[in-house]
Amino acid sequence: MARIVMKFGGTSMAGTERIRRVAAIVKRQQDAGHEVAVVVSAMAGETDRLVNFCREANPLYDPAEYDVVVAAGEQVTSGLLALTLQALGCRARSWLGWQMPLGTDDAHAKARIGALDAPDMLAAMADGEIAVIPGFQGVSEWGRITTLGRGGSDTSAVAVAAAIKADRCDIYTDVDGVYTTDPRIVAKARKLRYVTYEEMLELASVGSKVLQTRSVSLAMKEGVRVQVLSSFIDDDAPPADSLPGTMIVSDEELAQIQSARLQSARLESEGPDMERQLITGIAADKNEAKVILIRVPDRPGAVASIFGPLAEANINVDMIIQNVGRDKGETDVTFTVPAADLPRAQALLESAQATIGFQRLVTDGKVAKISVVGVGMRSHAGVAATMFQALADRQINIQAISTSEIKVSVLIDEDETELAVRVLHTAYELDAI
Amino acid sequence: MARIVMKFGGTSMAGTERIRRVAAIVKRQQDAGHEVAVVVSAMAGETDRLVNFCREANPLYDPAEYDVVVAAGEQVTSGLLALTLQALGCRARSWLGWQMPLGTDDAHAKARIGALDAPDMLAAMADGEIAVIPGFQGVSEWGRITTLGRGGSDTSAVAVAAAIKADRCDIYTDVDGVYTTDPRIVAKARKLRYVTYEEMLELASVGSKVLQTRSVSLAMKEGVRVQVLSSFIDDDAPPADSLPGTMIVSDEELAQIQSARLQSARLESEGPDMERQLITGIAADKNEAKVILIRVPDRPGAVASIFGPLAEANINVDMIIQNVGRDKGETDVTFTVPAADLPRAQALLESAQATIGFQRLVTDGKVAKISVVGVGMRSHAGVAATMFQALADRQINIQAISTSEIKVSVLIDEDETELAVRVLHTAYELDAI
Repeated sequence: MARIVMKFGGTSMAGTERIRRVAAIVKRQQDAGHEVAVVVSAMAGETDRLVNFCREANPLYDPAEYDVVVAAGEQVTSGLLALTLQALGCRARSWLGWQMPLGTDDAHAKARIGALDAPDMLAAMADGEIAVIPGFQGVSEWGRITTLGRGGSDTSAVAVAAAIKADRCDIYTDVDGVYTTDPRIVAKARKLRYVTYEEMLELASVGSKVLQTRSVSLAMKEGVRVQVLSSFIDDDAPPADSLPGTMIVSDEELAQIQSARLQSARLESEGPDMERQLITGIAADKNEAKVILIRVPDRPGAVASIFGPLAEANINVDMIIQNVGRDKGETDVTFTVPAADLPRAQALLESAQATIGFQRLVTDGKVAKISVVGVGMRSHAGVAATMFQALADRQINIQAISTSEIKVSVLIDEDETELAVRVLHTAYELDAI
Repeated sequence: MARIVMKFGGTSMAGTERIRRVAAIVKRQQDAGHEVAVVVSAMAGETDRLVNFCREANPLYDPAEYDVVVAAGEQVTSGLLALTLQALGCRARSWLGWQMPLGTDDAHAKARIGALDAPDMLAAMADGEIAVIPGFQGVSEWGRITTLGRGGSDTSAVAVAAAIKADRCDIYTDVDGVYTTDPRIVAKARKLRYVTYEEMLELASVGSKVLQTRSVSLAMKEGVRVQVLSSFIDDDAPPADSLPGTMIVSDEELAQIQSARLQSARLESEGPDMERQLITGIAADKNEAKVILIRVPDRPGAVASIFGPLAEANINVDMIIQNVGRDKGETDVTFTVPAADLPRAQALLESAQATIGFQRLVTDGKVAKISVVGVGMRSHAGVAATMFQALADRQINIQAISTSEIKVSVLIDEDETELAVRVLHTAYELDAI
């Protein structure tokens, strides 16, 4: 018997029929003898509806009252799932953020989870009652409703799993796992059985929308085993334990699994594709915009005068290149910012033109960032070289490069996104046979 | 300076624009120097939407989870009104049922209000902050959300007004007061400046939908001065203190007001219409159904065998007549039940036919109950006689009669409802000149 946290997103909770499917999936886990807590999102579209009401009421809204309004969406679905589980003959009850209680700080609308001490809920679970928990919400020490920020239900699920020492946190989504790349771009993309937390972080932050970044960070920090699964499976599917979702694990656990599988591969004559891939996945992100500052004085402090104000304004700068200028003592500086922040960044830089001393500012929103991710590259050289060569072979021009320990990203023309992803998927031998 | 509770219904809260009107009305009270608490309903239609979700999830729903779901509607509007008040420059915050807390018993979906001890809220109000309270919801001693049953927001408002010793509880609705009868039926209906609690109870329970019966009972018990006002007034209207709504007061207060007004009438040469009317209002209710049991054995216990099971099934029986039967030892029994309960009542009675011993059951849903109400009839004979004569003059047949100390009701053919109300409105000299 295990203790399991299951999480269902807004698409899975959108309406009576879908909630009934969710209840059936949950019941299967309980029937298998597990203790179950379920974390739910609001119905798809509901949070947007509530957020819009807040904006209409008061464009400069008080985040404490915003939280009162938007937390209602998950309150509704938690009650409805409890009712639906009861209709299937299960014992179930909802535990709202303030009832468990799930303590947070009082940074309303983007609260951070603090303590979760839920002895009553755990006792009820041990007694065979399914706990249904509205995601995204908590309670401040002042007894006011808080929310964790958009997508916070994944984070709620991981936090609950950590606090109640769950054996596993199953995140049910509208995809059935994490793929080597977006299957809509590359038909030969393959589902990954395992990824590490760090790989998932890189994949999540570069546009693979399976899991919210914060939830992966928290899972890594707390050592929660997270599994990504599809909630759109038919009712006769086997229990989730044997479902081929994607499990997110630590480096160490992955190493153990791999050595065990190599062992079994030898014994059962399995092919060499059991071996660890150098690259785990390829992500594409079109939500970046490029900024070029032309003819910046090449002197100490110049770069600081550019990026200091952007950092203060909470604008994330990602890739930075300093080109050699045409004239001595001058240089061109290129970098990327999230496309949504481009107007603010441009306004900030233009107002600081005299201080920075650049001659001209050029922007380009038609760019895409392509990233190859994999813990394997730690021990292998040549990953970046393979990438540059593969792109060059197809005449795809690289506008900027950034790297981390387990990631290489390049900026290219947005029109070439799909081509680049397919080319790289093949180059790293990720294509399904 | 007074302490005022204001209550706004679902029609007044239906959407951003209407909430803005409500906020303006509330702000006017605060600007006049009053301490203000506002009780709000869910947006019109929202509670029905949530109730339907519960029914779809589980037809035999657990009322505790039903409460979690439906309480979300008022949670949303309380946050939105707080935000809207803030946009007008007021300080405001929402106080949910569990935050005040507003204690109730644990009869979920129809909870009764117990204790309200809200020192923090009162301190905030005294400090100039407007308290926004979601109506209809409370919290049980087990820390679970409860709701008061449909229409419970009026009751919340009165309970809050009683608990915080408010000087007045203003109920804003989509009508501008209590009328002598439905103005859609009788164009010459007149708005009442004052009605007593008991009159209002009779008017509320016989179909005048201005206030929920429970809220009037509670106001009478707690001595809360309730005023019914329209929320659809223009922004330049004078503050509510001087608005011509209807004030609901005790017999004693009414007597004082009347003697004061007669005094002033003499001084200011006002007309005799200042004197107390014999009849305060006329109500019509088409939601009754008539049941006739034909040839019931005329023996001790026969009536108990009919009405015992109905009472156990929580079906309210209103008017009862026992006709003389055609044969000795037998009688016909006629009574009314709410139309919504007719199928259940019929099934119950048919299954008990052998026990009761009646020969045949006849039902009629096409009936209406017409009631004349007024505390004046306590001291005046002839009220019923006037009613019967007026109806007889127009050939309107009376099928059943029931009376209380301040009410006479008759059952007539539903088609004659409007005619009967008009005839009686004239007969009791209620028509506006």
